[in-house]
Parts: sequence; structure tokens; C-alpha cells
Amino acid sequence: MDKANGPKNGDCSTRVIHGPTNPMVTPLLTDLYQFTMAYAYWKAGKHNERAVFDLYFRKNPFGGEYTIFAGLEECIRLIANFKFTEEEISFIKKSLPSSCEDAFYNYLRGIDCSDVEVYAISEGSVVFPKVPLVRVEGPVAVVQLLETPFVNLINYASLVATNAARHRFVAGKSKILLEFGLRRAQGPDGGISASKYSYIGGFDATSNVAAGRLFGIPLRGTHSHAFVSSFMSPDEIIHKSLRSSDGSRTCEDFLSAVQMWLNKIQWLPSLHGSFGETNQSELAAFTSYALAFPSDFLALVDTYDVIRSGVPNFCAVALALSDLGYQAKGIRLDSGDLAYLSCEARKFFMAIEKEFGVPGFGKINISASNDLNEETLDALNKQGHEVDVFGIGTYLVTCYAQAALGCVFKLVEINNQPRIKLSEDVSKVSIPCKKRSFRLYGKEGYPLVDIMSGENEPPPKVGERILCRHPFNESKRAYVVPQQVEELLKCYWTGKSGKTAECLPALKDIRDRCIKQLEKMRPDHMRRLNPTPYKVSVSAKLYDFIHFLWLNEAPVGELQ
Amino acid sequence: MDKANGPKNGDCSTRVIHGPTNPMVTPLLTDLYQFTMAYAYWKAGKHNERAVFDLYFRKNPFGGEYTIFAGLEECIRLIANFKFTEEEISFIKKSLPSSCEDAFYNYLRGIDCSDVEVYAISEGSVVFPKVPLVRVEGPVAVVQLLETPFVNLINYASLVATNAARHRFVAGKSKILLEFGLRRAQGPDGGISASKYSYIGGFDATSNVAAGRLFGIPLRGTHSHAFVSSFMSPDEIIHKSLRSSDGSRTCEDFLSAVQMWLNKIQWLPSLHGSFGETNQSELAAFTSYALAFPSDFLALVDTYDVIRSGVPNFCAVALALSDLGYQAKGIRLDSGDLAYLSCEARKFFMAIEKEFGVPGFGKINISASNDLNEETLDALNKQGHEVDVFGIGTYLVTCYAQAALGCVFKLVEINNQPRIKLSEDVSKVSIPCKKRSFRLYGKEGYPLVDIMSGENEPPPKVGERILCRHPFNESKRAYVVPQQVEELLKCYWTGKSGKTAECLPALKDIRDRCIKQLEKMRPDHMRRLNPTPYKVSVSAKLYDFIHFLWLNEAPVGELQ
Repeated sequence: MDKANGPKNGDCSTRVIHGPTNPMVTPLLTDLYQFTMAYAYWKAGKHNERAVFDLYFRKNPFGGEYTIFAGLEECIRLIANFKFTEEEISFIKKSLPSSCEDAFYNYLRGIDCSDVEVYAISEGSVVFPKVPLVRVEGPVAVVQLLETPFVNLINYASLVATNAARHRFVAGKSKILLEFGLRRAQGPDGGISASKYSYIGGFDATSNVAAGRLFGIPLRGTHSHAFVSSFMSPDEIIHKSLRSSDGSRTCEDFLSAVQMWLNKIQWLPSLHGSFGETNQSELAAFTSYALAFPSDFLALVDTYDVIRSGVPNFCAVALALSDLGYQAKGIRLDSGDLAYLSCEARKFFMAIEKEFGVPGFGKINISASNDLNEETLDALNKQGHEVDVFGIGTYLVTCYAQAALGCVFKLVEINNQPRIKLSEDVSKVSIPCKKRSFRLYGKEGYPLVDIMSGENEPPPKVGERILCRHPFNESKRAYVVPQQVEELLKCYWTGKSGKTAECLPALKDIRDRCIKQLEKMRPDHMRRLNPTPYKVSVSAKLYDFIHFLWLNEAPVGELQ
Repeated sequence: MDKANGPKNGDCSTRVIHGPTNPMVTPLLTDLYQFTMAYAYWKAGKHNERAVFDLYFRKNPFGGEYTIFAGLEECIRLIANFKFTEEEISFIKKSLPSSCEDAFYNYLRGIDCSDVEVYAISEGSVVFPKVPLVRVEGPVAVVQLLETPFVNLINYASLVATNAARHRFVAGKSKILLEFGLRRAQGPDGGISASKYSYIGGFDATSNVAAGRLFGIPLRGTHSHAFVSSFMSPDEIIHKSLRSSDGSRTCEDFLSAVQMWLNKIQWLPSLHGSFGETNQSELAAFTSYALAFPSDFLALVDTYDVIRSGVPNFCAVALALSDLGYQAKGIRLDSGDLAYLSCEARKFFMAIEKEFGVPGFGKINISASNDLNEETLDALNKQGHEVDVFGIGTYLVTCYAQAALGCVFKLVEINNQPRIKLSEDVSKVSIPCKKRSFRLYGKEGYPLVDIMSGENEPPPKVGERILCRHPFNESKRAYVVPQQVEELLKCYWTGKSGKTAECLPALKDIRDRCIKQLEKMRPDHMRRLNPTPYKVSVSAKLYDFIHFLWLNEAPVGELQ
């Protein structure tokens, strides 16, 4: 894959929209039944009937009361380049019954998304159940084909962005959060998508080089346990000289300088007895790493024993570097009791700062990275810790606490006729009609409620009282006088309709939107324990219509 | 992506190995620290030291006692084509500190995997914790770069194959299992990989067209709720004629034939009162679908009401088809009490077979597909049901019950020196040395124990007693007289060493191996509740060596 196919956002003027980041996202990345349905629509002469589908989810993930919407850009890239190749057509032909008429494949050959319109909430927004994230309008057979890839591209993207935002919420603004999940992600682009959408959700950087290249996300990383254990002893170090940071002098035997410092530390009264003989292969590894990266020395200190070996070895190297004008970057803890170990390491650093008068040594960065998640971050906060940087992998990228978001794509109108999907489970009944939706803000600037209304209803107005009804529970309703009204759905793809579409914003802008929107939420919606549900409503008129249609479509039961 | 880049297995003679299925899998799909380490190795002159890494996991997933190994082929494809492009090199350069020497990038330019050897257990095998799935040997800097992509490619592949095998185990051999997870998968190739590895784990087909094309997996799918609700009434159906199956006659008004049958069913004494007026848009949708696919009529019957509308509408269409010599394929249930609804539908079909003498009608296939997982399959079995086909999505492909497998990649030897990684958590201590591993079979043909030994130890022999020791628990040991000895690690990549490497088998063969291996396991290892752990051991000699090295590397504590 070439970088030329990579993101190129913000180029609104030209509107050249490149294909999806992952070249495997093609019109064939869909369920077979989208093609059987396309054939049946075509055979019935219905394929060009104008249909409106809503993409939405029914429940916020992770026991929370909010979700971050993400994945839109990849959907727009797909439809902007939606066209079957001859080879794809022949595969579809092979996959459908041989009785299907040839003319259908000619129809498929001609399909693109020039008759499709996509309205969506801006990527990176805070969103809520039942409110359409995306509204897709177009020929029923074409829009149907988009169902699976759209839901695929949005489900995981939104899930992992939400997960990242939740981790950020617990960690607090002052901490640095690194996404370290590539190796445990669900496949290669589970990893790449995780890096992208964790960044949107508020992470600062990733370890994933491919994601760094594709999206310009900052990269972070130093070394692993294997690097440490690949060294046997300091005798292995051959090139021992190190130039000082300002280039003014050269230390010919940096290893000896390190060993001297280790000796000094060992006899410090304030540290006396806290460690004995440190591991020599570890010392060799740290020294060697520092020789390679004198300005970026960060050491993984738990290969043998954090307090008795890793931290003193690190300090010896850091002090030797300090003599040459370099400031060590920090340590990483990857096992054990992170609260305890980080506090012990901090004490160690403080003692050294004090004893040897090395300014800033006490504040050296401590990173931690062992199977962290929302709960462990919360527990660390409660216990007290000295970690500055969290590297989060498995639980973040696989969304371990809830591995799927249940976005659906439901037909709400065809040929201007509203449609409803019933279910014995009320939460699964769809909200019919082509709709608009609005976020209403209260006096204190917080969003109060989202309201959906029929397309032709007058929109809510600032300062004007409006009745907001729960879509299915008749007793739940409230009057609201909005202080601000935000229309949620914006046009992101117009096909050849001549309308103006929104720009695809740059990743950084999506991330900023997400962070700002989260800050605007009322705190009780955001808390981890028993958050208050945010209200989602319909207009009085839409409420009446939903229930009229429902009664009309549902068969009357007969008790026997 | 072109099919030409797709799998081409079994072509052992030529050994042309194409790149990874997902073009995003490149040498950059790795963690940044692999490059910082490569630089530090290079700077220390250590980069060509011969290292041996083991890839293994520590705990079986899903509370089970077995795992299916998968993902090997994609790893071999990666290394067979492992080479940095100039553009990748410049990105790496941009990502490393500017102090890194230029000569390093020349070194990177020259890197490939011709000095690497890969030994692995055959893909599709049943595997156990701690036993190396893959052993990679080569220059330390190069092998280190492979860590992240190897672990990424194997972790999820093995996890989802295991999940599929577990679903198959509960469903039983006689059921048809379909993977329906694309829309809920973790990103596009979360979906594509899920289809591939679910098939290996024993699924029969997928809905994912892209996966069908890439891997030749059988495809399945019919229609969704949207198709049903896109119809308003039977008046929409314009082309009503249908030729009989043998081409001998044409029914000019198939819709009337359906309506006539619906009327007949309604007045059947055995069904009397079980339904009233059925939903007319549903009837229109079913009729229209049957006109498009007379030989493949399968209807989703829960859009309005399964028993009062969907099933009678289906039966009317199926009977009208039957008059023309077509046999309907079945129904799909996607909500509600699947046990109850499937039994009611079966009764309905049986009644129709009996009343109208339509042979086989009672046995019409019933598919079910609503948020199914191991537990719901188990519950359905206990309750009794009439489902023939299960479509499984979210819980299968996202491995909802446990979203990650924890494969690790540990240095076990460098320059012929065994290395160990210690940890306060004994389960995280690595087993040092370049090893061989063997599966020992007992009298009844079941595998009894896996044993690892040093590379130069004599292998276990059939009929000869051998002591198998738990690697870390000195009291756990047992003598075994194997009736069969299977060496587990086979050579899959030799680089330029001149050794012969195994063929990459075809997907179907990997699937067959998996199914056969699962059948060979002793049943108590396989049961869902409290399965017996399979034994994993080391030779007496390796045991002694591990503990010698451990004591050697660990610092002695001091209680204060």
C-alpha cells in the first residue's frame, strides 16, 4: 500500500477522496445476502426505489452512558470509490445461483454511489443510543450493499475510541497515555484501527509504526525484556566511548563511569541495604542502550528485580549520562505492584537528587505497562502511585470489557413511505421516518437532550419551549427551553445531487472535537459508577406517528 | 488487492510464497521499540548474533484446556517477502532520533529473512500453554523485528479458531455452522480473518463475500429485515409469473397461488386459530424473493411475528413453490425464544406435511441467528430445539468471552547461550534453551503429555519409559511409556540454509487437521465444565538446567 493512498483530509477544495486506508475494504467486503437482496430487488423492479437507512446503536458500551462516534471517514472513502471490478463481478456471479439473469450483472457493473447521500454526525462527537449516527439515502439495492461495510467500519472504530476516552477519563489529563496494543489486537488492522481511534479518543501516541506512518500519530517505544536478556555481561560492550551532549568532551570509558556511579549509589547511606549486587547482564544492556540513545535513555527495569537491580542499574547509567550533559528519559515497569514499585522508584530518584544534587532527577518519568485497564488505573489512583505515563495494550485495543458495539442499519423509509421494524423486545423496535436530530443545550452550557423529529417538522428554536418525548415510554416526557440548538446530521456525501458536502477533517481535528465534546458533558453522565443516562427523545409528532405505525403493522394476538 | 496475491498453497515444488493476505502487513507493522532495539544492537555490534525466540501462550482461552494454533501461513508469507522499501526506510529514519547514524539505514536496506529459520507446529493443531508454537532463529535484530507481526498474526487467528472449535463442540457434528460476524468484527480484517479461522475451527461457511473470494470458503446468505419491510403490499409485485422447476409449465400468477395456499392453511383444523391475518408486506417480500430465487427460497420470518405471520406466510410461498416442483430451503429466526419458536415452526411444518401430503415439508431447515454463543447453544441443547443451522456472529468473531490470547515471543538463547526471563509471577518465567518438543501418546491412542527437551537430548522413544517433569513444580512428575511419539516443531522456513521446509498446506487441509486432532483428544480435556488440564512437561535434564539458570540470574533478597 502506498502512502499516496493514505489520508488526505482537509483538501475540501478539490474533493479528491482516496480509497479506504485498508485496501481490503472493497465493495465485496459485505454479506452475501446484500447481493441476493440486490438481485431480488432488481428482479422485482424495485432496485431504484429511494430508501433511507439509519445507522445507530442501541446501548452505550462499557456500562457507560456515552459513546464516541468514529469511522465515518473510512465509510466516505469507500463510497467515493465504490465500483465493482470485472473480477469482482465474476466472483459474485459464481456465488449466486446460476438461475440469476445476466442482465443483473450489467446492472451491478454500472453501480456507484453517485445517487447516494450520506448525512452523519461529525466524527469524534459524543453520541447516544437510538440517534442516527449516519443516515444513508439512495437506491435501495445500492444502499443495502453498504450496510455491512458501514457497520463494520463504524462499530469497532466507535468502540475503541470510546474505550480510549474512558481510559483517559480515569487516568486524568496530566498523564501521558500510549497505545501499545498491536501484538494483541484482533488482526493487523485491528491493530492499525486501534491506534487511529485510540488517538481520536484522547491517547497521545502509539507504538505501532505502520499507524504512525499512515496517520501521522506520534510514535513511542524503547526496548523489551529480550534486549536486556540478550546481554550476558558488561564484557560484551566493545565501543565504550561517549561524546558529551554539547560535543565538548568525550568519555572514553562510559562503562567504567557507570560502574563507578553504581558503586557510589550502593554506599549511599539513604539507600544502604536497599540492594546488593545488581544483575550484570541488565547493567550491560542499559549501558549499551544509553550508548546508542544517550538523549533518549529509557530503561525497562523489571527483567530481573525492579528495586534490587533495575532501578539502581538505571540510576547508575542515568547519572553517568548526566555527567555528560544528557538527561535520562525514565524507566518502564512492566510487572508487579505498580503502585508500590513506582513509589519506591520515586523515593530512590529523590534520594539520588538529594544526595548528589542532580536537579530534576527526582522527577524522572515513570512509565507503567502491565495489562492495564480502566479498573487498574482507578485502583492505582485510589492507592496512590508515581506513574507519569501509561502504556495500555490488550484491554484497550480488544475492548476486552466489551468486545463489540451493536450498531445496526435499519430501513426507515422507502418511496417516501416510513417503515418500522417491530420486535417483541421494545428496545429493538426501530424509529421510522427520514429524520432530523438536534442536540439541545441548557443554561449551564451542558447538552440536555437529543431530539429526533420528522424531516419536515420545524426545528427546535433557541428560547422556545419544546416537548421532548421518550420514543417508547409514554409517561416519560419533558419540556425543554433550549439555550442553544445544534443540528446533528450534516451532509458528508452528496453524490451528484449538487449539494455541498462537509470536508473530511484532519485526524487531529477529529481528536480535538472529541476532547472538547467530552469536556462539555455534564459530569454525572461521565462518571464510572452509576452514571446518569443522557436523554434521547422524539418530537410529539414523531411520537404519535411511531405508535400509529406500530399498531398498524403488529398483528393482534389471541390468548388461548 | 488482486487475487493473484491471494493464497497459493500446496505449490511446494515451486515454493513461490505470496505476500500476506492483508497488504497492510508489511515490515512496518511492528512496534517502534523493535527499531530502537535494532539500532542499539547494531550500534553495539550485536545485530548479527544468532538468537532463538520462542512464541507461546501461557493460558488456554475461554476457561478451556486446549487451543487451536492458527496464523502460521501469514507469518511465513511475511518473512518470505520481508524487505524494506526506500519509503519505509525514510519513515523509520524520521521516527528515530536524529543522532542515529546513517550507516544503520544501509543495514536496514539489506535486511531480509534469508538468515532466519522458522520451526513451527502445523497450523490447525491442538496446542497447549508453554509449548513453543513457533521457534524463530536468526540474527537477533532481524528476529526482533518479527516479534510484533508474528504475535499479532497468531494471537487472534488462534483465538478465533479455538472459539469456533468450541462452538462446534457444543453444537455437535450434525449442525451446520455459519459465520455471520463481519459487521460486528473488530475492523475489516477482523472480519476477514474471523471468516478464515472460524472455517479452520470447524465452521461450514461464511456470509463474508470478500473472505469467500480470498480463501474459497463456501458462502451463505439470503435476506434481511430491511428486505421484508421494503415492501408495502402485494400490489407492488408486477411480474408474477413463474416457470416450473422442470420448465414444463408456467404459473402466470404466482402471487394468487400463494394467497390461495395461505387461505387453505388458515382453515386447516390442526392449525386453526394459530394465526389470523398475516402481515401483507411480509407476504409480498417472501413472494418476491421466491420469484427471484425459486430454488433457494429461505425466508427470515421474524420481522413482524414469527408464528402469527412469518411462518404461515413462508409456508404459503413454500407450498406454491412446491406445486411448481421447487423445494423451499427453510426459514431463519433472528429474535425471541429460539427453542420455543423452532419447535412451534417444526410443528407447523409437520402439520402441513401431514395435512397436504407434501413429502419432506416437515423437515424443512430451520436456521437461527440471534446473538448466539457457546452458552446459548448449550442452553438450547438442554431445553430441546429444532434448529438445523446456526448463524453465529458477534460472540464468535470478537471472541467476546475473552477478546485476546496472550501469545508472547521470548528470547531463549543467544550465541548458543540459554537465556531466561524471570518474573515474580512464576507463570511468567520463560523456559530457556533452543528446544525440541514432542507429543507422547498412550495406549488408547490419546495424547498423554507434551514434553520439551534441550535440542541435543535424545528424543523420547516408543516403548521406552521417560520422566516428564512439570517445568516449575518439583513435586509434579510422571513416568510415561509412549506408544507413539510425535515431534511437534517442523521446519517451515529455512532461508538460504539449504534445509527442506514443509509445504504450506491448503486451507481445507488445515481445517481437516484441526477437526481430526480435536477428535483424537481425550474427552475430559474437552468438556466445557471443569475440563482436565492436559499435561505439559520438560525433560529431567531441561528441568535441572532451568532451575540452575534461575538461581544464577535471580538476585538474593534481604528481609528487613
